[in-house]
Amino acid sequence: MQFFFSENATLNAIVYLDKDESKHCVKSLRKKTEDTIHITNGEGQLFEAVLMNEDMNRCMLEVNKEVDFPFFKKYKLIVAISPLKNPDRFEWFIEKATEIGVDEVFPIICEHTEKSGIKIDRLNRIAVSAMKQSLKTVLPKIHSPLKLNDFLNIDFNFEHKFIAWCETDKQVLLKNSILKNKDIVLLIGPEGDFSESEVKDSIQKGFVPISLGNSRFRTETAGVLACHTVFEANQ
Amino acid sequence: MQFFFSENATLNAIVYLDKDESKHCVKSLRKKTEDTIHITNGEGQLFEAVLMNEDMNRCMLEVNKEVDFPFFKKYKLIVAISPLKNPDRFEWFIEKATEIGVDEVFPIICEHTEKSGIKIDRLNRIAVSAMKQSLKTVLPKIHSPLKLNDFLNIDFNFEHKFIAWCETDKQVLLKNSILKNKDIVLLIGPEGDFSESEVKDSIQKGFVPISLGNSRFRTETAGVLACHTVFEANQ
Repeated sequence: MQFFFSENATLNAIVYLDKDESKHCVKSLRKKTEDTIHITNGEGQLFEAVLMNEDMNRCMLEVNKEVDFPFFKKYKLIVAISPLKNPDRFEWFIEKATEIGVDEVFPIICEHTEKSGIKIDRLNRIAVSAMKQSLKTVLPKIHSPLKLNDFLNIDFNFEHKFIAWCETDKQVLLKNSILKNKDIVLLIGPEGDFSESEVKDSIQKGFVPISLGNSRFRTETAGVLACHTVFEANQ
Repeated sequence: MQFFFSENATLNAIVYLDKDESKHCVKSLRKKTEDTIHITNGEGQLFEAVLMNEDMNRCMLEVNKEVDFPFFKKYKLIVAISPLKNPDRFEWFIEKATEIGVDEVFPIICEHTEKSGIKIDRLNRIAVSAMKQSLKTVLPKIHSPLKLNDFLNIDFNFEHKFIAWCETDKQVLLKNSILKNKDIVLLIGPEGDFSESEVKDSIQKGFVPISLGNSRFRTETAGVLACHTVFEANQ
């Protein structure tokens, strides 16, 4: 099974694939006019669409049926995570979090964040590719970097708000803190962790400190494993 | 906290760091003669050692105390996983599995394996670096690639032997199949999954099919997430 992506896909619409996707469809997969393909809008919907031409630069499709989808998740997962010195590692986080299932990613600048540069366009391309590859229908929204305090001022109104914190061993495990089908916001700090005042501010805004287990993980690993803990708790 | 590595580290021994580690110790961390550092032998032991010189090519250390270690795990985890077309993805699996905790990795050649090339030296360097970074004391043993059938003929005598298989939705979840502190062997197939006859052979050798959840994961992602499921079940 193969997924294509167009943010404009909606029932009965005519949509066009971009150049990369058109080439993939017509050249790599050798799809022909009148073949049916699967296309998602990245917002949780999957459709059947009929190929109207074999234009390698701009395939035209007619979306004619919404289809049920087996990997639908019933919770929203937002991850706020510090950017990393090495952009590959942040890109890897985006790929894996998309595969596992994440709805929004906020790169947050913390006291110990070493570098805040984020190439949103590149991250979006990685997310599109990971979404299609793993047969997901949700394209995560990747926000521009913002300061932790600005993030903390966003009103999420989610039941589950957690901050992963290494400093003490008093926290409960994330896996024991999650109820099924509840929306979740997760805060993941930089290498060097959150500062004490950042943790204090987060707690004041309703974030509960949790542990990812008896180990030390890199930031991007912590982010991916936290997404996986949420995924597993919802299985 | 920083870990150094020498496979020769044992109580009261004189050991030498290799060039990279010596430079890291003396130049980056500015350690001086008579400073105490932590060194692991990669076999589960951690020691305190005293720096005897500041030789940037070959630091000499006297190992003088074994120390208790907070991240010790009580189970053995062996992962047999298909090599991947893209070597970066296999390297990433090695890094993350080491961070989470794995004892042995067997690259297994399956029917649908596209490429079997594995650079063991490079993978070992990645594992050493991930072990130190994540304050682990176990350096995973990375074996040379072997055919699935040869792997299946190894007698592990482990209570937990699982094969991750996507084809049916009848399997139980891995997370519901694990008892605490039990040694585990996990089989992870290539992109395109195990063939039916490979699954049959594995079952005949005592492997139980399990699911990693309602999603499709890349091989390297499946490998990392399976290690994480084992880690979490043991927390």
